[in-house]
Amino acid sequence: MSMASKSMLNAQALARSRLSYRCYNHLSKIHVGLGSTPYSTKNSKVTASHQAHSLLSPCKLLSQQKATARKFSQRSLGQDNLLDVSVDSSSGVATLKMQKPPVNSFSLEFLTSLCINLDKLHSDGCRGLVIGSSLPKIFSAGLEITEMYQPDEARLREFWRTLQEFWIKLYGSQMITIAAITGHSPAGGCLVSMCCDHRVMADGKLTIGLNETLLGIVAPRWFSDTLINTVGHREAERALQLGKLYSPQEAVAVGLVDQVVPLESVAATVESTMAQWLKIPSHARHLSKLQLRQPTLDRLLHTRQEDIDNFVSFITKESIQKSLGMYLAALKQRSKAK
Amino acid sequence: MSMASKSMLNAQALARSRLSYRCYNHLSKIHVGLGSTPYSTKNSKVTASHQAHSLLSPCKLLSQQKATARKFSQRSLGQDNLLDVSVDSSSGVATLKMQKPPVNSFSLEFLTSLCINLDKLHSDGCRGLVIGSSLPKIFSAGLEITEMYQPDEARLREFWRTLQEFWIKLYGSQMITIAAITGHSPAGGCLVSMCCDHRVMADGKLTIGLNETLLGIVAPRWFSDTLINTVGHREAERALQLGKLYSPQEAVAVGLVDQVVPLESVAATVESTMAQWLKIPSHARHLSKLQLRQPTLDRLLHTRQEDIDNFVSFITKESIQKSLGMYLAALKQRSKAK
Amino acid sequence: MSMASKSMLNAQALARSRLSYRCYNHLSKIHVGLGSTPYSTKNSKVTASHQAHSLLSPCKLLSQQKATARKFSQRSLGQDNLLDVSVDSSSGVATLKMQKPPVNSFSLEFLTSLCINLDKLHSDGCRGLVIGSSLPKIFSAGLEITEMYQPDEARLREFWRTLQEFWIKLYGSQMITIAAITGHSPAGGCLVSMCCDHRVMADGKLTIGLNETLLGIVAPRWFSDTLINTVGHREAERALQLGKLYSPQEAVAVGLVDQVVPLESVAATVESTMAQWLKIPSHARHLSKLQLRQPTLDRLLHTRQEDIDNFVSFITKESIQKSLGMYLAALKQRSKAK
Repeated sequence: MSMASKSMLNAQALARSRLSYRCYNHLSKIHVGLGSTPYSTKNSKVTASHQAHSLLSPCKLLSQQKATARKFSQRSLGQDNLLDVSVDSSSGVATLKMQKPPVNSFSLEFLTSLCINLDKLHSDGCRGLVIGSSLPKIFSAGLEITEMYQPDEARLREFWRTLQEFWIKLYGSQMITIAAITGHSPAGGCLVSMCCDHRVMADGKLTIGLNETLLGIVAPRWFSDTLINTVGHREAERALQLGKLYSPQEAVAVGLVDQVVPLESVAATVESTMAQWLKIPSHARHLSKLQLRQPTLDRLLHTRQEDIDNFVSFITKESIQKSLGMYLAALKQRSKAK
Repeated sequence: MSMASKSMLNAQALARSRLSYRCYNHLSKIHVGLGSTPYSTKNSKVTASHQAHSLLSPCKLLSQQKATARKFSQRSLGQDNLLDVSVDSSSGVATLKMQKPPVNSFSLEFLTSLCINLDKLHSDGCRGLVIGSSLPKIFSAGLEITEMYQPDEARLREFWRTLQEFWIKLYGSQMITIAAITGHSPAGGCLVSMCCDHRVMADGKLTIGLNETLLGIVAPRWFSDTLINTVGHREAERALQLGKLYSPQEAVAVGLVDQVVPLESVAATVESTMAQWLKIPSHARHLSKLQLRQPTLDRLLHTRQEDIDNFVSFITKESIQKSLGMYLAALKQRSKAK
Repeated sequence: MSMASKSMLNAQALARSRLSYRCYNHLSKIHVGLGSTPYSTKNSKVTASHQAHSLLSPCKLLSQQKATARKFSQRSLGQDNLLDVSVDSSSGVATLKMQKPPVNSFSLEFLTSLCINLDKLHSDGCRGLVIGSSLPKIFSAGLEITEMYQPDEARLREFWRTLQEFWIKLYGSQMITIAAITGHSPAGGCLVSMCCDHRVMADGKLTIGLNETLLGIVAPRWFSDTLINTVGHREAERALQLGKLYSPQEAVAVGLVDQVVPLESVAATVESTMAQWLKIPSHARHLSKLQLRQPTLDRLLHTRQEDIDNFVSFITKESIQKSLGMYLAALKQRSKAK
């Protein structure tokens, strides 16, 4: 990314940071109001860029009302094909596949696209959501390290706020959410998996876990809360301190994933599990989910700005920057060696 | 139940709602004061109606003092043989068997009788309590649906308050409490089991679990708190969202029950477990129990009225009433088909 | 202990109670400032009494400034060889072996020595700490009963405050802490084990658990919090109510210990586990640990005085004193019989 485009993006990010949440809601409502759902044909494939285009009209409406909103809509248009989203209109189940090579890492743009798509699927009335990956052997490597290395502070803040936003939307989602973990799922990839209601992992030489500690950084409180809710306090202590990456068999043993099946059976297993969950009355199911997850969601919702401040202050420390730099250098070395 | 008797009962319930708790305490104290414990012979069988009669004298005293109290005592007298209570005076262990056909469902009257008996056994100095069922294949089906369908609001509020009362008394009981689960134990039946200190379940085609979601309703926060305390957060999430009914083997695997034995061994297993628990110094044991359960109890104690309001507001929603109506119709259809 | 020496000790304890914490910190800082670490040679053995001597200079400095501080330093000098501490300077791993016959019970002096040593090892920059026992078949029997029987209240309060202090230091320790449980580990012995990051227990006829209930006393809230964090709520309920002592195999099954190995393999297992943990970036590891343990630590830190008051009020009750007396008599009887 050129310096020019980067700073432009930061300017947009700054403008956005104050209205992003409300803006999302407007987009959703307007879109529903227009009734022009792009998810109308059975198993139709719609990529993120197509969606961005499909958002054009309502966003244009918005942009005529507010300059700030225009900036947001422009940015949506600038997205690459980061996601492959399809909806089975007969069942109301969406499949969202991450396709951001090489490792589906969460950049600000990718997180924004994920947030927009979650809102859109929800407002389109989808009842279920399968989150998977189009890339072989990788689910998601988690946060994009370059977002955190020598960062522009405004963008860094927006990056973290959008990550919070994504977690809030996914962890409390009204949809039935199932993770189809067909590849490695460290750090943020593990977080996304844990946010789902059910996790199916492919067997083989894959790993999953919150391994932030190995990079010298610390997963925020809401990452560890999510982990505690999934595997319990004791296992979370061990996992976080060691930055442990679990094999599929280890993961299922401690409850980090719910099922481990051969790679070729993941899709069918996810489908049959989803079919079972779809039989449950939706509203009561979602209220039950919130009853258990809302206290954890509230803990972040009540300290969101503080959490951003903490993250920025921690990650910009010289020592942390140094270890991120070394890690990036090692990554480059490794890819050169290949 | 005729319209007349129903509205009379509601009037009594209204009068009761303001003094029920204090009244329970008075009854207990007076009874102890008179020293006429009906649990004086070894393994003497005393049914709830006998107890009601045995409560006559102290209640009459009370009723001469207060008109409202009289209404309460009258109602106690009107109870059917809902419970079969016996006490082994040598060990101080009471056995309370629910015998309210067809499914030991918790009506307002049944819950009131349970509360009175818990208080009585406690004030009589019982050290242990086994909760079981006299009905074959059923422990308890939980809340009486008709209490929640097209309800009189005053009675509905009293119903919920009495359910809270029962949970508070049982979950924090000074007695060693063991559930002898010899039959199905869905919803409120599962709650009662979880309130005990130990759960023995008969093997076979039985189920146990909080399945409220399947009816389109949501178990209140204190139900889910009790479940989390029993099986942990992750299993509680799955159980509540799916309204999962566990087989005995599944239940013991996740810790929802402690032991699964053949039906004919349940009584002996309960007895030997009770014998083991009776060896522990009572006061320290109860304080240890409260140390772990009091925070959960407090959460309801601090929000009791709010919890009633929430329940009433939720259950009287048109959509919820509709699904309760459909469920009741399906139950009738099923019993006609037999 | 003679009456005279006991009351003198109490006077010291009183003086100390108001400044002990600050004093510890001063000692640490001064010691570091002097740079005279006694843990400088590889695998050098330093006993607690040597350490006490090694603390002479800085304490003398302090004692010249404050009379109260002098009393503290005098007392340090009076310690027996309660601990066997060695440090492997190449790895930065300390080994602290309790050697207070007959059962490594926690008296005020022993707890004070443990606190001082934890501070010292931490300020000397140790990265890992193995806690074990020099006594065969016993890890630690926990609190010294005589501290609680017919106590001098001032000393009792200091005793409890020092126990709190020890728990706070160990549970949140910056060091990697591993318990080498080569002998029985009831009550406070179990607490110390649970405070560590990892627990290796010898197989055989040993037991571990919080068995306070069996003595008619109740483990304080922070004991049970630590237990809940280790084995979960349900198992903690059963364990505390029953005062359950687990065999090594039972303990590993519920997660109370992490590994059970033959006695002769404990040291090697601890060493290889420590080597694995030492690879993790220290700062991030410790922050991860605090993220999970700080809420539990805070609960005591915010109610420390109240917790002391509760303990003193409970333990000095006539009924509790009576059962402690009977327990002590039984212990004497047993040792006479041998």
